Amino acid sequence: MLGTGLIGMFYTKTLHNQRGKDRVHTVYSRNEEKAKQFAKEWEIPGWTTDMREAINDPETDIVVIGLPNNLHKQAVEMAAEAGKAILCTKPLARNAEEAKEMLDIVEKAGVFNAYLEDLVFPPKTLKSLESVERGELGKILWVRSRETHGGPHSDWFWDIDQAGGGAIIDLGCHCIEIARNFIGKSIKPVEVMCWADTQVHPIDAEDHAIGLVRYENGAIGQFEVSWTFRGGMDLRDEVAGTDGTIWINHFLRTGFEMFTAGGKTGYVAEKAESDSGWLFPVGDEVHELGYVNMFKNIFNALDNEETPMESFYDGYVINEIIDACYRSAGSKQWKPIKLQEWRGESKVEGPGKSSEVDEKYLLIKKERMPDGKTKLIMKEKTSGKIVEKILTQSK
Amino acid sequence: MLGTGLIGMFYTKTLHNQRGKDRVHTVYSRNEEKAKQFAKEWEIPGWTTDMREAINDPETDIVVIGLPNNLHKQAVEMAAEAGKAILCTKPLARNAEEAKEMLDIVEKAGVFNAYLEDLVFPPKTLKSLESVERGELGKILWVRSRETHGGPHSDWFWDIDQAGGGAIIDLGCHCIEIARNFIGKSIKPVEVMCWADTQVHPIDAEDHAIGLVRYENGAIGQFEVSWTFRGGMDLRDEVAGTDGTIWINHFLRTGFEMFTAGGKTGYVAEKAESDSGWLFPVGDEVHELGYVNMFKNIFNALDNEETPMESFYDGYVINEIIDACYRSAGSKQWKPIKLQEWRGESKVEGPGKSSEVDEKYLLIKKERMPDGKTKLIMKEKTSGKIVEKILTQSK
Amino acid sequence: MLGTGLIGMFYTKTLHNQRGKDRVHTVYSRNEEKAKQFAKEWEIPGWTTDMREAINDPETDIVVIGLPNNLHKQAVEMAAEAGKAILCTKPLARNAEEAKEMLDIVEKAGVFNAYLEDLVFPPKTLKSLESVERGELGKILWVRSRETHGGPHSDWFWDIDQAGGGAIIDLGCHCIEIARNFIGKSIKPVEVMCWADTQVHPIDAEDHAIGLVRYENGAIGQFEVSWTFRGGMDLRDEVAGTDGTIWINHFLRTGFEMFTAGGKTGYVAEKAESDSGWLFPVGDEVHELGYVNMFKNIFNALDNEETPMESFYDGYVINEIIDACYRSAGSKQWKPIKLQEWRGESKVEGPGKSSEVDEKYLLIKKERMPDGKTKLIMKEKTSGKIVEKILTQSK
Amino acid sequence: MLGTGLIGMFYTKTLHNQRGKDRVHTVYSRNEEKAKQFAKEWEIPGWTTDMREAINDPETDIVVIGLPNNLHKQAVEMAAEAGKAILCTKPLARNAEEAKEMLDIVEKAGVFNAYLEDLVFPPKTLKSLESVERGELGKILWVRSRETHGGPHSDWFWDIDQAGGGAIIDLGCHCIEIARNFIGKSIKPVEVMCWADTQVHPIDAEDHAIGLVRYENGAIGQFEVSWTFRGGMDLRDEVAGTDGTIWINHFLRTGFEMFTAGGKTGYVAEKAESDSGWLFPVGDEVHELGYVNMFKNIFNALDNEETPMESFYDGYVINEIIDACYRSAGSKQWKPIKLQEWRGESKVEGPGKSSEVDEKYLLIKKERMPDGKTKLIMKEKTSGKIVEKILTQSK
Repeated sequence: MLGTGLIGMFYTKTLHNQRGKDRVHTVYSRNEEKAKQFAKEWEIPGWTTDMREAINDPETDIVVIGLPNNLHKQAVEMAAEAGKAILCTKPLARNAEEAKEMLDIVEKAGVFNAYLEDLVFPPKTLKSLESVERGELGKILWVRSRETHGGPHSDWFWDIDQAGGGAIIDLGCHCIEIARNFIGKSIKPVEVMCWADTQVHPIDAEDHAIGLVRYENGAIGQFEVSWTFRGGMDLRDEVAGTDGTIWINHFLRTGFEMFTAGGKTGYVAEKAESDSGWLFPVGDEVHELGYVNMFKNIFNALDNEETPMESFYDGYVINEIIDACYRSAGSKQWKPIKLQEWRGESKVEGPGKSSEVDEKYLLIKKERMPDGKTKLIMKEKTSGKIVEKILTQSK
Repeated sequence: MLGTGLIGMFYTKTLHNQRGKDRVHTVYSRNEEKAKQFAKEWEIPGWTTDMREAINDPETDIVVIGLPNNLHKQAVEMAAEAGKAILCTKPLARNAEEAKEMLDIVEKAGVFNAYLEDLVFPPKTLKSLESVERGELGKILWVRSRETHGGPHSDWFWDIDQAGGGAIIDLGCHCIEIARNFIGKSIKPVEVMCWADTQVHPIDAEDHAIGLVRYENGAIGQFEVSWTFRGGMDLRDEVAGTDGTIWINHFLRTGFEMFTAGGKTGYVAEKAESDSGWLFPVGDEVHELGYVNMFKNIFNALDNEETPMESFYDGYVINEIIDACYRSAGSKQWKPIKLQEWRGESKVEGPGKSSEVDEKYLLIKKERMPDGKTKLIMKEKTSGKIVEKILTQSK
Repeated sequence: MLGTGLIGMFYTKTLHNQRGKDRVHTVYSRNEEKAKQFAKEWEIPGWTTDMREAINDPETDIVVIGLPNNLHKQAVEMAAEAGKAILCTKPLARNAEEAKEMLDIVEKAGVFNAYLEDLVFPPKTLKSLESVERGELGKILWVRSRETHGGPHSDWFWDIDQAGGGAIIDLGCHCIEIARNFIGKSIKPVEVMCWADTQVHPIDAEDHAIGLVRYENGAIGQFEVSWTFRGGMDLRDEVAGTDGTIWINHFLRTGFEMFTAGGKTGYVAEKAESDSGWLFPVGDEVHELGYVNMFKNIFNALDNEETPMESFYDGYVINEIIDACYRSAGSKQWKPIKLQEWRGESKVEGPGKSSEVDEKYLLIKKERMPDGKTKLIMKEKTSGKIVEKILTQSK
Repeated sequence: MLGTGLIGMFYTKTLHNQRGKDRVHTVYSRNEEKAKQFAKEWEIPGWTTDMREAINDPETDIVVIGLPNNLHKQAVEMAAEAGKAILCTKPLARNAEEAKEMLDIVEKAGVFNAYLEDLVFPPKTLKSLESVERGELGKILWVRSRETHGGPHSDWFWDIDQAGGGAIIDLGCHCIEIARNFIGKSIKPVEVMCWADTQVHPIDAEDHAIGLVRYENGAIGQFEVSWTFRGGMDLRDEVAGTDGTIWINHFLRTGFEMFTAGGKTGYVAEKAESDSGWLFPVGDEVHELGYVNMFKNIFNALDNEETPMESFYDGYVINEIIDACYRSAGSKQWKPIKLQEWRGESKVEGPGKSSEVDEKYLLIKKERMPDGKTKLIMKEKTSGKIVEKILTQSK
């Protein structure tokens, strides 16, 4: 385990809180005290302030990178050299160029690689993805993924040089990949429109951004990210298809509500802003956020010599999309996504637009009116004229 | 009452279902049968197929325009000529040019004019606007307003010539004005970025669109409109400010839930898609959608010789924003909003970004960590360096 | 308007905040200052501290009683003598004996009488009652109605002599009548089981109680009332029928949610406990609580010489049920409801329990299993033996 | 694993779907085909139709009893004789007498025993229990636990001889123990009031029941159970304390909502009633229902030679409470709970009722009024008179 920040803690908690065989054997931190304390708190046998030592430790089968963004590449290089399986936290890199280099390193070295994108693994998300795959929503037209809160916990996130950006690089990477999973990872993302601004904090990076990613089949992945949100962590996904809709709330409204007159409350949930009044805790936080299923998917893939659901290639695609976002925000224009390599399908079309009523008409809409009657709105094929017709029989 | 479609019905129902003095005296429809039936159903003394006759009727003090978009201007001309008070449904016109002409007509004639934007008048919205005015949310940074359903009821909406556009002109007009009210009607909207597509229906206009309207103070009004949504009518607003958040759900999740094994259900709610399983009716639909408060505001304004909350000028501003949306969608660029006349404030700035901790540091973030400790993330003023500090005393 | 407490304020606000013809002409309070101030605040022409004067005022057509419970009867006597229409707040009386006397007085005098039970008139409740009447829920089996908060606003509520009881008489009267409306006002309530305790407050009356009212057809009306609840006013109804379910939330979860860092918030909602953090305001409070529809129903009934939806007889029935509750709580047994006069139906049976599969079997349950198969659980008619059968074809 | 019904499936799924070391080694069913198929589906090495063989298998360390209620005792006898650790599903027995015998058997044999009450282990419940233990809700006054659906899956549940009762024995055992955990397992349950009826199904046992369990400190545990509910499985807990409130929804409203036009949907959730329209799936069903945490607690207890959170003694207490419920339902009176052995505390008092304002007055209520003023309602100690006082300064 490289890194002892919040994410290192979440990863370790996930692994150690189960009755599983998967445990952290040694932990690395630049800071000796943090390394020691972390090892003690989570009952980890070893600790070190020497990254290479941690990686090369013969007990280490798997290197989990939970470091600031600017240190990912170096850690990947060392781990690939050592021939270890590599799990890297999100975002993969600070930009697409760096991500591509890291992808090339692991693929050249032939080591197992997984991209730690926990937010495609929440139980609700996995079940939703199954529904989408079974066709219950028809063709996906639009996905909104939103992650907003009051800003990250560690200093380096706020430093554009270490992080590579602001809320987009920190949170947008999640939202982009969530939408990509719903729309279909084999569908090519082609262009991006993005607004980004620094509305509240005295920093150089953006603290609020909204982006639209257009896929080849016309589907739109919309992300909303912010470090300015008040009220806790807002983590929601909305999926709209031709035949259905899914709304998921991962954090603030999950059927768990508590009012307390206050004074005695401990930890409520990640990024919660208050400890009295109406509070909205989360049941099993590491499970709801996908950590449990993510590691299960990765370790099973490793055991079975398969590719995990999220690999370095996915991380690279996301970094390309993010780069396009920054280009778009700067130029105030839609910008193409410059994938150097596309491993999915090509020329996928959107849903067809024609539903025939009969030889003469296409159906635009069928609706039940307040009076119980059914109305058809149709387009005459030859003239293009739009007409309506009330059906005399109900339903 | 000019028009006997769904909107004419909602307007009349609103007026006639109260113990008030405000009643419809005569109704006009192009179609004789519809005019007759509407008059009978709502106990309206007069009906006619001659618009001028309806307007010039000496019993008519107020002309309510509930006609297709392409007929608004003609009706306004006649009513202004007759010197009657004019209430025009949304959108004011098919485009900004037409809207400006209508604005000029009523202002030159000196007649009372109101723009029938019901969705800034729902009880929840009015109360939210009061909260925002009292400063409970701080400075408003972002507003999302969403209206999506399976498409409108009448044929003319689907015809781009009669309507002037698709989902943007039909639904975007609501969402744009909702955001404008929350951000502040005196703040100038300056530019627009918009995506629009025809994803599902065999029509020429857009059936799905998303837009961002940037205001002079940096605030963003985001609209999401669609005629492709499945599951009923999704009508939600989200407001984010520096000090707070508001989430309003007007339709599908209002604390009213019903499961029925089915077979006997009548009308559930506007645009509902099914009549068995879990259904989400709305309590008092015309009240929840703002009609009751809207007419109260307008009639009180008329009685007191004041300007109503929404006037033709507001309708014109909205049409200018919509025109910019279509230009943006066509050009794939942000486009300026070309207001010929601005009646609000100018040069309004956004929230400041600096909060001093002491002489040396600016505060970036203060956060309570899972272990109960408080962490400050700060920027050193001179170097710009970002540092963190753990406070030893809690809170 | 007799009374200037919270209820008098809500009644007056309801009437005066609409564009209606119905206004308060004179207000009575025992306290001169309160009478004056109330008249001024609500622009009421007259005020007095002499109840008889208010009632006999020739401008007074309707007497609205919003006084403490122990003063209802006296006011009814005076008003009946004066031949005025009488609207009395809830509960009708402190006990069934007093209620019966009041019923006899108004019926002997032949004056219009209405019982001001607002909570059967919320928009969601009225729409639900229509659904139930249309049979969408099948036969009603159970209704839960819950009203709990931190206790009433005025001193007299807490005094058992003036009020006649505690949370049951204050809040149970609402819940009992809500359930009665859903189950059917023509179905006879026959017996009651009630728990009541004084858990928190230093008073003689109960501050928490739960009761079950059994109706002749086997349906159960369950009420939960409390003056010990934390978090605001919890006002929910749940209705379960053989074919469906309704869940209504009138107050704390109505699709209106607000987070504020605090400091500037004014009035949130009746009985709200905090003004920062997550708050749950209500849109149009007097409408959501039924006041608007209640007065509309009553005034329309008065205009049309009909009986309003809730009359003194209903108030009397409720007082009889409450009396049985206190007897039950004291004796720890189910107690019969001693209606001196029953104006509804008799001998109404519950839903039948037999659904034939074929000559040999009755159906107990049909269910779709996780594997998609359908299972029947049946009872063999002759032997009473219970067997299951898996259908080979799905659905 | 003894038993291959729904519960056996849930238990096995829980154990096998994790990366843990805990696996089922052999499965027993009376029915050979079921045993074989279950073993195959869940990759269990052994299967048998001979219960003793399964228990005595040297690979078997732990016997998990997932059999119909009437077979629990026999299985416990065999397993205790074999000296194996025993985990028995809910309810422990058909009645208190049988439960006491089973408790005596395992305690005499000195074998590890755990009671498989999954519904005190859902993540939301465990977190809530921690909040209650930290005092965030003050003293617990009332708990409502509700489990209702359309009836169980297997035939034997519906047969009163095999099951020992109906909805109370099937579902009430959960709700009773949930309330007991919130109120405090060391607080003695003293008496019970219960209504039970057979409203819909052609069976001898109750299909709908409501009960109140009174604890020594005055707290009330309320259960609502039904096999007549429509709309899926309603699984909710509500906890009210002197300082706070908790509302948990485990199943139908957990922030996961889906609309589908239908036709393609598979399994939605346990007891779901439809597969189109608005559906409410559950994320990770076995986790949300507590199975994962339950087995973790038990196996950790076994490893550490501790008592698990729920043991046979708890199961016995619940059976005594249920017996009292049936006595109460039959006699229409509160009935005492006849615990033969009480292992908790005695003479625990409820929350005190006195809060002094000053020498003269006790505080009844402090409330913020709509006008922003604060009102005190107080009781004069000597006279008992109730008075109110408006504080001139706000807050």
